[in-house]
Amino acid sequence: MRARRIVQHWLTLNGDGPLQLQLVRALRAAILRGELSPGQRLPSTRTLARELHISRTTSQHAYEQLLTEGYLEARQGSATRVASTVGPLPDASHEPALPSSRELSAYGRRLAEGPFGYPYRSFAEMDLARFELLYGLPDHRAFPLDAWRRALADAARHATPRALSYGEPEGNASLRRAIARHALSTRGVRCHPDQILVVAGVQQGLALIARLLLDSGDRVLLEEPGYLGARAVLASSGADLVPVPIDGQGMDIEAVPKRARARAKLVYVTPSHQFPTGEILSLSRRQMLLSWAAEHDAYIFEDDYDGELRYEGRPLESLHALDRQQCVIFAGTFSKTLFPSLRIGYIVLPSSLIDVARAAKWTSDWSCPNLEQVALTSFIESGDFARHLRRSRLRYASKRRVLLEELARALDGVPHSVGGSAAGLHVVLWLPKASPREIARIVARARALEVGVYPIAPYYLGEPRSGLLIGYGLLDEASLREAIRRLGRAILTR
Amino acid sequence: MRARRIVQHWLTLNGDGPLQLQLVRALRAAILRGELSPGQRLPSTRTLARELHISRTTSQHAYEQLLTEGYLEARQGSATRVASTVGPLPDASHEPALPSSRELSAYGRRLAEGPFGYPYRSFAEMDLARFELLYGLPDHRAFPLDAWRRALADAARHATPRALSYGEPEGNASLRRAIARHALSTRGVRCHPDQILVVAGVQQGLALIARLLLDSGDRVLLEEPGYLGARAVLASSGADLVPVPIDGQGMDIEAVPKRARARAKLVYVTPSHQFPTGEILSLSRRQMLLSWAAEHDAYIFEDDYDGELRYEGRPLESLHALDRQQCVIFAGTFSKTLFPSLRIGYIVLPSSLIDVARAAKWTSDWSCPNLEQVALTSFIESGDFARHLRRSRLRYASKRRVLLEELARALDGVPHSVGGSAAGLHVVLWLPKASPREIARIVARARALEVGVYPIAPYYLGEPRSGLLIGYGLLDEASLREAIRRLGRAILTR
Repeated sequence: MRARRIVQHWLTLNGDGPLQLQLVRALRAAILRGELSPGQRLPSTRTLARELHISRTTSQHAYEQLLTEGYLEARQGSATRVASTVGPLPDASHEPALPSSRELSAYGRRLAEGPFGYPYRSFAEMDLARFELLYGLPDHRAFPLDAWRRALADAARHATPRALSYGEPEGNASLRRAIARHALSTRGVRCHPDQILVVAGVQQGLALIARLLLDSGDRVLLEEPGYLGARAVLASSGADLVPVPIDGQGMDIEAVPKRARARAKLVYVTPSHQFPTGEILSLSRRQMLLSWAAEHDAYIFEDDYDGELRYEGRPLESLHALDRQQCVIFAGTFSKTLFPSLRIGYIVLPSSLIDVARAAKWTSDWSCPNLEQVALTSFIESGDFARHLRRSRLRYASKRRVLLEELARALDGVPHSVGGSAAGLHVVLWLPKASPREIARIVARARALEVGVYPIAPYYLGEPRSGLLIGYGLLDEASLREAIRRLGRAILTR
Repeated sequence: MRARRIVQHWLTLNGDGPLQLQLVRALRAAILRGELSPGQRLPSTRTLARELHISRTTSQHAYEQLLTEGYLEARQGSATRVASTVGPLPDASHEPALPSSRELSAYGRRLAEGPFGYPYRSFAEMDLARFELLYGLPDHRAFPLDAWRRALADAARHATPRALSYGEPEGNASLRRAIARHALSTRGVRCHPDQILVVAGVQQGLALIARLLLDSGDRVLLEEPGYLGARAVLASSGADLVPVPIDGQGMDIEAVPKRARARAKLVYVTPSHQFPTGEILSLSRRQMLLSWAAEHDAYIFEDDYDGELRYEGRPLESLHALDRQQCVIFAGTFSKTLFPSLRIGYIVLPSSLIDVARAAKWTSDWSCPNLEQVALTSFIESGDFARHLRRSRLRYASKRRVLLEELARALDGVPHSVGGSAAGLHVVLWLPKASPREIARIVARARALEVGVYPIAPYYLGEPRSGLLIGYGLLDEASLREAIRRLGRAILTR
């Protein structure tokens, strides 16, 4: 009777996947919801099979899996029972958050108090609009997922014991060689593979460098407006942040009073496509920045954001290529050119920082995952990556043309300008006449028209200018046209 | 003539892979070695094809790839040339290490000066012995690489745009649910998935927690002898390290003078299989540690090292399962149960630390790679993981029996004892009569007999005991027998 009740009340096979797996899932869920309690006796596999109209083998195999996983217990000669150690997972809302008198470190307190701890809704949780113009995301359609899957599967298929074991903190040697060649050919970065540290994206590169260079109170120059991820990591280190204004030539270090920049130890800059304005640091500004850094014993962290996606003219040489004093730390990423959740990037280190940065990487997380490094190496060496880059540039260049065309058409008569269109995956639509309130209204009206668009204001430490960020990575050309038409309506409706 | 010279002198196709790829590699190498210089004119695709006895299409495609990659340049109506921006990679030995007057942070100086920066030869560079008894490595033969490859390939095949994009810093929600269930059923860890932070291995978990809790000068208790990775991260934070002696019941906190442990903010402990002694923290010691921590507002970092590989008796409940005061941070890893270069682990956080730890993970490296998280989720949910764990336990238990048997036989008459054999992947062979010098000689003699074995001494902060670490992860049973026989000879030859 009891057995039948268990089956009738709690076990619903959801029809998804093999029967055995359905049964395992149903039993696991019943245990974890507390419907089957610790020590409770289960029906025999025979009874269960009969009640559920499944084979006895299926019910036996399901029980075996749950025994192995520790959800069930079977003592010799006795019925199978729910293990005495398991029971419902606690409910977050009922979990008492004990008032902790345990203290955080100064770093922990800055993170806990700062507005920079977790400033964005996670993309995974975001409610994307039908016409989503979110910036900073590549076009997933462009990515050769099949080629990547093959590279990954090959890496796993041919994995040696060494490849599965603890790797080198500095990264896989073949990958570092491939990156050195790639950085040289695409960005003029000339370095020995030993200068390369493979990191989990530019964010980790900057976090390691900031920690190695900055004590609380040390001065850092960073772009205004600027990238929140960089601001967060620099602020959490306790550094004194000095914003440097951006104009049409990029970061203007001379606009900062001499006294304020005198003692700076580090400059964070995105010269290829400034985030968020999209401006490109001019050659004369590059030279100015380099001689200033050399003179003041400061390091420059060159975040080569969007450096490989340039549509107009020849890409400028990277700061690294112009550096004669080993003061530039160059950071490259595969987040935009492959996909963001890959989490592989690299930094090119001056020789003085190689050993200490490797030690920092080792103590921080040992190394990056290896099979992905192997896959990336063959992806680069086979030419798949170069092909993908070339195709991506063509695709984005074409979308960008559509975007600029449609913006001009949709905003005819509205005072506006478009910035940052020479490179990257987004532009800025400057609306000089719009108040912050109007910008908020435009964003809300656009959302009502199923268009996702975002103000530039949060990227300013100080007084913001009025503008919207328009990313063209996600949408295809037809949707992009429609998105801009609707955005035009949202702007024109006053 | 010139074209022919280039072909004859510098282009050797190595016969490895498609002809086009061979040609691309050869040209790239010649450019990077400086044999073809920036601006140098290349033979026409026709000449090249003729000289190398390949098709014209092949030479054309190779040039196209190198044009895309930026190694070559072609101006309208003119010959293809080596790009003016590329040239040989610098040679590390000739790279001038500029004496840098730029200062490191206090953290950077500790890392640069400490003996803990990079204390091991990277496994990837190690010269493994034929009979390698290196500890801390699982048996790669046991790992179902095929199942893992399928899980990875499936994750890539079904990747949605969201799966490819920036993920949640705390980790993939499905994986956190799967881990919560797994930790509950195997280790009695009862937690809500929101308490779980997916990290790049226990090393990152500890690095994040240490930074959140410890300022320079703060006191930390850690095991003596103990794990170097933990010691390095704690020492680099500037903490005051207080070693706690290990005896047959594990860490003995009462052996530390009261004054020395009074102000401790954090305890690092490996209760399931202490590294390196292999002792298991007894239940009474667990209770003692927990009440001490609660009373002193200290956190306990429970590194569940080898917790899932227990061969004798029932595993003890984790500290986390016994904790009523939310002072335990539980850390689990897949490095030993899957493979080390996967770099996925997790920490279970008290509610007071959830938000700040997520912020720390975000600023440190944004999140762990996502496709691997998806693959791991399905690997756990399909039952593949539980099956693999069960088989691994049987395999290791059998190897352990062989090891203990052979040790007893090989060391008959030698004063010795074997510690730490109830769990994990290594034992300690204590040789109380052997001086440090004799231990060094034994290690050298073993190496001469093609056996890799390692002293326990480096894991002590203070005076070391005499012993050898013997890992039985790597070798199969027959090789293990032979390894121990040879080790016996190395020990008996005096």
